[in-house]
Amino acid sequence: MPRLPRRFISVLLFTLPVILVAWAAPATAQSLNSDVLTAEESDPNRLGWMQGFPPASERVIGQPDANYFSFPKMRWTVCHFRELLPTKQVSRGLAAPVPLTYALDDAINDVMFTPLGGNEPMSWQASLNENYIDGLLILHQGQVVYEYYAGCLDEAGKHGAMSVTKSMTGLLGEILVAEGALDEEALVGDILPELADSAFGNATVQQLLEMTTGLAYSEDYSDPNAEIWAYNAAANPLPKPESYSGPRTYYEYLATVQPEGEHGQVFGYKTINTDALGWVIARTSGESVTSLLSSRIWQRIGAEQDGYFTVDSIGTPFAGGGLSAGLRDMARVGQLVLNEGVINGERLFPAAAVERIRQGGDRQAFAAAGYRYLPGGSYRGMWWSLHNEHGAFAARGVHGQTIYIDPTAEMVIVRFASHPVASNAANDPSSLPAYQAVAEYLLEKAP
Amino acid sequence: MPRLPRRFISVLLFTLPVILVAWAAPATAQSLNSDVLTAEESDPNRLGWMQGFPPASERVIGQPDANYFSFPKMRWTVCHFRELLPTKQVSRGLAAPVPLTYALDDAINDVMFTPLGGNEPMSWQASLNENYIDGLLILHQGQVVYEYYAGCLDEAGKHGAMSVTKSMTGLLGEILVAEGALDEEALVGDILPELADSAFGNATVQQLLEMTTGLAYSEDYSDPNAEIWAYNAAANPLPKPESYSGPRTYYEYLATVQPEGEHGQVFGYKTINTDALGWVIARTSGESVTSLLSSRIWQRIGAEQDGYFTVDSIGTPFAGGGLSAGLRDMARVGQLVLNEGVINGERLFPAAAVERIRQGGDRQAFAAAGYRYLPGGSYRGMWWSLHNEHGAFAARGVHGQTIYIDPTAEMVIVRFASHPVASNAANDPSSLPAYQAVAEYLLEKAP
Repeated sequence: MPRLPRRFISVLLFTLPVILVAWAAPATAQSLNSDVLTAEESDPNRLGWMQGFPPASERVIGQPDANYFSFPKMRWTVCHFRELLPTKQVSRGLAAPVPLTYALDDAINDVMFTPLGGNEPMSWQASLNENYIDGLLILHQGQVVYEYYAGCLDEAGKHGAMSVTKSMTGLLGEILVAEGALDEEALVGDILPELADSAFGNATVQQLLEMTTGLAYSEDYSDPNAEIWAYNAAANPLPKPESYSGPRTYYEYLATVQPEGEHGQVFGYKTINTDALGWVIARTSGESVTSLLSSRIWQRIGAEQDGYFTVDSIGTPFAGGGLSAGLRDMARVGQLVLNEGVINGERLFPAAAVERIRQGGDRQAFAAAGYRYLPGGSYRGMWWSLHNEHGAFAARGVHGQTIYIDPTAEMVIVRFASHPVASNAANDPSSLPAYQAVAEYLLEKAP
Repeated sequence: MPRLPRRFISVLLFTLPVILVAWAAPATAQSLNSDVLTAEESDPNRLGWMQGFPPASERVIGQPDANYFSFPKMRWTVCHFRELLPTKQVSRGLAAPVPLTYALDDAINDVMFTPLGGNEPMSWQASLNENYIDGLLILHQGQVVYEYYAGCLDEAGKHGAMSVTKSMTGLLGEILVAEGALDEEALVGDILPELADSAFGNATVQQLLEMTTGLAYSEDYSDPNAEIWAYNAAANPLPKPESYSGPRTYYEYLATVQPEGEHGQVFGYKTINTDALGWVIARTSGESVTSLLSSRIWQRIGAEQDGYFTVDSIGTPFAGGGLSAGLRDMARVGQLVLNEGVINGERLFPAAAVERIRQGGDRQAFAAAGYRYLPGGSYRGMWWSLHNEHGAFAARGVHGQTIYIDPTAEMVIVRFASHPVASNAANDPSSLPAYQAVAEYLLEKAP
């Protein structure tokens, strides 16, 4: 984590998890210092966070030292956001869950690949600790072939999805577009008059969905004037200092965003696009993102657990990064998307919603953003398209979260992680080729 | 609500729902002013709290005006604590819920009774709005004969159980006693050395379970020096002001409690007894109250929904009042208790745990406390025994929450409510005789 000016530390203490969600950033490769704890060394159970009644003071993650998203504390926190912040439920409803079917294959552990930019081959199994994995599940042809838990997570736990949340919000947006309820050519300012005078006003819904808006918004934490600080302060659900006079909610913050550059030219990965999309969805559907995600997805996929979102001071769900959920339920969503809207024999939304995501966005606009490990990729509906030979596309969250869908291999990989580096550039080299290697293994094995 | 000195208002804003949970108090009858909104007039859907994106500013329940437990806002808040405060899950596990069986009987609406201290007969149906009921379910011989939702609640929602939480904590305590894991003659200070020098130190576990401890602890909100203020400040999970130097957790607060009078003499309904019991349970079992309630009860009754507890700044669940849960799941717990530990054909704990609760506590100590509407009653295991002809006993929460168990009529009534008056003395007169009348109706009808 970059060193911060002292005056911002206290802000930081109370504004996570808003921070760190946004970085799936176009960084160069980052490798860990040798003095950073390994996955085993930083295991939250081993370190004893929050164990005992009360926990030893140096093992408390809470107030007054609320710096709960620093590594290695963060490896506990990713499973416990609701214990630190107000949250809103994504209800699974009351019906019985639909169990996943299993065809486990331990041989996947031995699948070998070569990390990007490296020479030494690595096994799938070795890649788990390399990437600080807390949970990983692979579906092949709809069956669970691999399931793994570590760190703070188990099958009955929930984990922060970080920016994978964006892909849930984006999917809802694409569903509304495919159903004709939302016009992707419409201007955001026409749907949300409150944003008419902001940079969003003359952007289209499609530009939100592809994040090609031109916004003056920096997430450079080393810059005390970066817009991220005002955003974090606005998003913080805790009481504001009396002297505070800035925006107090996601919505109020969005209305202050100023333009920078032209819309539609360059891909710019900025979380506030998703928050604006969440607002568009709520205004259009009459339901909050939490409520719509429940009624359209969570209640209909046979989910085992409720999910939840963190919220701002007036209960607005954090559409850009606030979701926590169970690993198996994320796998159910992945399978639903792989199947283009069908799960357990039922169609939940038009196939067109996923077709648009798979098609991808403007590749030229994406190339301009310089993602070293996603050459030739694009972004659409808040999903990342790799445009590789398998047509793979993915939801991606900072610290290593993913839903990786390979239509050719009929494979879904869902992953929760708590990598110490807040950029996927740190885990992509030993993740993306590993996914591809497993896909090839499964393709070879497939009937 | 009593008028508070101005300087305490801001404390109040951030310390609910800790406040108001404690009052199942020995008050005299309180009737509503005619200018208090009726149940229909104060319906949270009708008033439009938190509707819209964003809600109109005067319809927001959140920061900066966090006075969310004032009537009529409170009628929304009772279903939404998690959206305002950090919380900890009581997991139902991942298995399929066990559906309740139904034998609905609409004629219950026409059962008549005469309110205590009144002359005019009232129908069961009329008693619902009279008492600002949000949810009510009656089980007879294990089947649902009546189910009703209003206000903020529906079958898939959760509602604050308020002091009914105490009976869940008490049940866990009695289970540990019945199983021999916890000695009720043991001194609290021997189990929790941290409390040795407090008033709890030389109290027995049994005195906690019966609330006959002698504690200097006032919940008189009109007294700025009442201990409740320090308790609330300690329990508050939000960041403390920099100038704050008091206790920062439930545990730290409990260690400061001073003695007043003798233990074992008089029943004194003080929430901190339950918080101390929660700590005893955690130290004894190695599990928090949330975790133990999940593993011993919620995961084994076929629950439909997870429950949750509000927590303090280090994640300690509020054992004295923090539970929110679904109405049907509370009914499952009631049936489990009626059956003395058996549900869905499985025994979950020794019958002795419930036998002790039904036996009741020291009636003389209880009489000294002067509960007008519970003459001849007693308190044991954090449940209230009416010692009436039917042997009824109950969990009771402020604003009208209950699990009322009538073993003679094989009847369980569970009720969530948001009565404007924070004392059961306001709703008992049109509740207790109504329960008895329905019990007699069901007895007559029973095969």
